[in-house]
Amino acid sequence: MKQSMTLIPTLREVPSDAEIKSHQLLFRAGFIRQNASGVYSYLPLGKRVLHNIEQIVREEMDDTGAVELLMPALQAAELWQESGRWYTYGPELMRLKDRHGREFSLGATHEEVITSLVRDEVKSYKKLPLTLYQIQTKFRDEKRPRFGLLRGREFIMKDAYSFHASQSSLDEIYELLFQAYTNVFMRCNLDFRAVIADSGAMGGKDTHEFMVLSDVGEDTIAYSDTSNYAANIEMAPVVVNYEKAEEEEKTLEKVLTENQRTIEEVSSFLKVDSTKCIKSLLFKVDEKYVLVLTRGDHEVNDIKLKNLFEAGSVELADPEVTTEVLGCPIGSLGPINVEQVEIVADFAVQYIANGVCGANEENYHYVNVNPQRDIKVSRFADLRFIQEGDPSPDGQGKILFAKGIEVGHVFKLGTRYSEAMGATYLDENGKAQPMIMGCYGIGVSRTMAAVAEQFNDEKGLVWPANIAPFELHLIAINMKDEEQAKLANELYSFFKQERFEVLFDDRAERPGVKFADSDLIGLPIRITVGKKAVEGIVELKVRKTGEMLEIHKDQLLDTVKQLLSNL
Amino acid sequence: MKQSMTLIPTLREVPSDAEIKSHQLLFRAGFIRQNASGVYSYLPLGKRVLHNIEQIVREEMDDTGAVELLMPALQAAELWQESGRWYTYGPELMRLKDRHGREFSLGATHEEVITSLVRDEVKSYKKLPLTLYQIQTKFRDEKRPRFGLLRGREFIMKDAYSFHASQSSLDEIYELLFQAYTNVFMRCNLDFRAVIADSGAMGGKDTHEFMVLSDVGEDTIAYSDTSNYAANIEMAPVVVNYEKAEEEEKTLEKVLTENQRTIEEVSSFLKVDSTKCIKSLLFKVDEKYVLVLTRGDHEVNDIKLKNLFEAGSVELADPEVTTEVLGCPIGSLGPINVEQVEIVADFAVQYIANGVCGANEENYHYVNVNPQRDIKVSRFADLRFIQEGDPSPDGQGKILFAKGIEVGHVFKLGTRYSEAMGATYLDENGKAQPMIMGCYGIGVSRTMAAVAEQFNDEKGLVWPANIAPFELHLIAINMKDEEQAKLANELYSFFKQERFEVLFDDRAERPGVKFADSDLIGLPIRITVGKKAVEGIVELKVRKTGEMLEIHKDQLLDTVKQLLSNL
Repeated sequence: MKQSMTLIPTLREVPSDAEIKSHQLLFRAGFIRQNASGVYSYLPLGKRVLHNIEQIVREEMDDTGAVELLMPALQAAELWQESGRWYTYGPELMRLKDRHGREFSLGATHEEVITSLVRDEVKSYKKLPLTLYQIQTKFRDEKRPRFGLLRGREFIMKDAYSFHASQSSLDEIYELLFQAYTNVFMRCNLDFRAVIADSGAMGGKDTHEFMVLSDVGEDTIAYSDTSNYAANIEMAPVVVNYEKAEEEEKTLEKVLTENQRTIEEVSSFLKVDSTKCIKSLLFKVDEKYVLVLTRGDHEVNDIKLKNLFEAGSVELADPEVTTEVLGCPIGSLGPINVEQVEIVADFAVQYIANGVCGANEENYHYVNVNPQRDIKVSRFADLRFIQEGDPSPDGQGKILFAKGIEVGHVFKLGTRYSEAMGATYLDENGKAQPMIMGCYGIGVSRTMAAVAEQFNDEKGLVWPANIAPFELHLIAINMKDEEQAKLANELYSFFKQERFEVLFDDRAERPGVKFADSDLIGLPIRITVGKKAVEGIVELKVRKTGEMLEIHKDQLLDTVKQLLSNL
Repeated sequence: MKQSMTLIPTLREVPSDAEIKSHQLLFRAGFIRQNASGVYSYLPLGKRVLHNIEQIVREEMDDTGAVELLMPALQAAELWQESGRWYTYGPELMRLKDRHGREFSLGATHEEVITSLVRDEVKSYKKLPLTLYQIQTKFRDEKRPRFGLLRGREFIMKDAYSFHASQSSLDEIYELLFQAYTNVFMRCNLDFRAVIADSGAMGGKDTHEFMVLSDVGEDTIAYSDTSNYAANIEMAPVVVNYEKAEEEEKTLEKVLTENQRTIEEVSSFLKVDSTKCIKSLLFKVDEKYVLVLTRGDHEVNDIKLKNLFEAGSVELADPEVTTEVLGCPIGSLGPINVEQVEIVADFAVQYIANGVCGANEENYHYVNVNPQRDIKVSRFADLRFIQEGDPSPDGQGKILFAKGIEVGHVFKLGTRYSEAMGATYLDENGKAQPMIMGCYGIGVSRTMAAVAEQFNDEKGLVWPANIAPFELHLIAINMKDEEQAKLANELYSFFKQERFEVLFDDRAERPGVKFADSDLIGLPIRITVGKKAVEGIVELKVRKTGEMLEIHKDQLLDTVKQLLSNL
């Protein structure tokens, strides 16, 4: 494509509202423009990147046997009333009325529409399993849209839904989709992890998030430095083999710790390591209070606490309530002689020897605490967040933390929607059964931003070749020079004919402007036609490495092919 | 694709609300399902047809130098307020508020969005012309959605917009786009006409509709039986060389015509041909009344009347008003001795010899009327609708009428939006000028329906090869027969490898069901693997012609290639 005929409005300044690299660069390089908060136009370059990602997604989905369809954005309220989400989805769901006053939502997700479709058209186990997907614009009225395409209100998503007659069939398709997602993000050259995520009551194995590692991510991932283990930090079990210090149990003793309240203050004041301190926190677990103990250097993971009690809700008790229940301000809280509430403790607490804890009396702590001797713990369990340096739960390597951008999600839905909406099939015995469902999403426009976030340098974007809007950036230094114009045009025709995607900067701009724009846009290979055009020699630059070489046009094709295969 | 793994819910019954063939068949053959009135899901087969049409559109648009982008569906109300259309568009524009109460429309069309984008990014004549397009879901809240995809509320459109620094540049791109549209609809195998359409004040040459000829169309096209001339019936000029009958002018005479009011009644009562009668109608043209005369067998074309007076509005006067102005009920209205209003007449009236007209006196008509002698006509002009049999305005052949489905529209917008929204460029002298614009639409989903409407028979759909969801329908009569299953699987792999699009009916259904479904779905070529599988012989059926042949698998590829090239 000739640059003079398209719209690539590059900018030198960083827009004031763009906080992160991908937003800044996609804007500055003319890939996107904002229409309203969280609502964007994809300009020609942006549209091409979207298309490339969509094609990768489509190919990988098709390979699993999933079938593409297209559902509408306008969704009748009645459907969402059937599932119940009309009342529970909240203000993220955009709603409107048609001219006759009928209520609609604007598609935020399509479980209701697809479940109603399959309910109406599939009646027999013989037609299952069935996996359907679409690539489509979605609408979610985010409270605070930000980070450009990372958190928008109108965005492009691939969503897939599978329907099954058995759990094992769901497990099988889930595995296929999991692998397809892995392929998609690998082909996008992303540094990502498939992360075990929270699936609520369904158990940790039934949902994975695909997270692109990035400092601007809003989730924390715990991953192994050795294996491919990764989990949302909330979900990672702790599998440390704690050992008790080999020291004699000393006599419990109450000591004055005036104005020492936090673990830090107490450990420093008493000159003991925080690993020897016992932290006591009062939680409200559903309707009852529970005292939860962890080591001073650990944090309570309330999801684990919730799962331990199979509770609906878990929250830290207010300081006032805590004081009321335990008769002591929170700075001196402790478990010894506590009878009024149940006490649970993280495994690590069990191994503390001659430790420290609050005395349930203001300004006093106990020293020489030996939990098994001194504290009435009802259950020891894994109750803390994993930490960097902990062994990986799969037994391979140590845990590291990273921030992640969620670009994909695979989820075993079970019968949540089929039961609510009556989507049943007849089994081999002619008996109606609710279909078992899975759902699988990829944020297509978000993936574009994630790639931009991972692939850039101080000069601009650095696209991987298979995502780049064009493979080659052909630049004529001076289009008024006859030799240069001739060779540039010749190369443009040649590479197009060889089925390369070429952006040809034929503009009447200064070379400095062209080079700066070229670096900003970030196509993998730049071919510059300059003064040596008369000898048939051009300059070739690899955007990623900065490598430059002069080359005769006769060697150009082979060199370009070889370079691209590594980008 | 294996039919057992996709969703093609065929039906034998015709759905009750589907009035026309395309709607009935797309529904019955499992291409679409309705989600709400005028809102559809494209099931796997429908999605593939859409994709094929989109690809044709994309290739032809790219060939013109137009560049693809993607704008949002959510459009801030402020933009539409700038153009003024927020107030004038009416209830077809779907509107909603976000969680902060800000108003948006759901994209019905994108003139405002694109004009604001180009206004912000293009400042110089050097960056013009620029043509941008997108393929996108549009929303229009039709009062009475009907005919399936032909008149929906959520539909897929290709819309393009061009920006220019001169009228001649617009004319040039308009020609390119016109040709591209012609190519698109030819490649869709449609029987269509590019029809001169009404462009309001801009003159008839500046807008064309692309109409697919179909009895279910809602527009009437006047086209030449010889040339490619075609116009919306409202726009076709009448170029008849009328001749006056060679008879002596007789004396004007008032005759009793009791209870004879219509042209039919009067001509029959007086035994004169309707071509000798003069029809008189009173119109309100803006704020004044005008008496309009046509021949009895002609109809007034109010668009021509409007253009003659360069008026803002034209409407037939109420009977009561007419009686009040001319002092006579409408059954005896006439132009003789009328002084109180201007009289204009169609050219044909001028050539009437010894004709008939109302006497402006109840129950009386004049006979032996000779307009040039007896009537004070201020202007003779082309004021009537063209009729079948009239000479074509381009001088070639005669006019025929046809009904048409509008699938495309090219339109010279001029500066309507750029002036309202301040989209200016600096010309060579550094002076700000409003950009000159064109806009160009193709109804993508409507084109799918138009193809279905033109290509079907009593058994189902008959897709042209380049639009068909698959090229080949491979059917195994009995998948439990080892030889058949083996050959069918072999052919499926073979044709997929040869890059054909194959639908493989591997279902455990009776042959009759498979054949009926196959005819209904309408893929160009069916390959049936039956009892002769053991000899390597299959049956080949051409859907369009019904032609059947038995063929050995070794000859299959060549035969299929040859057949497809003609479909």
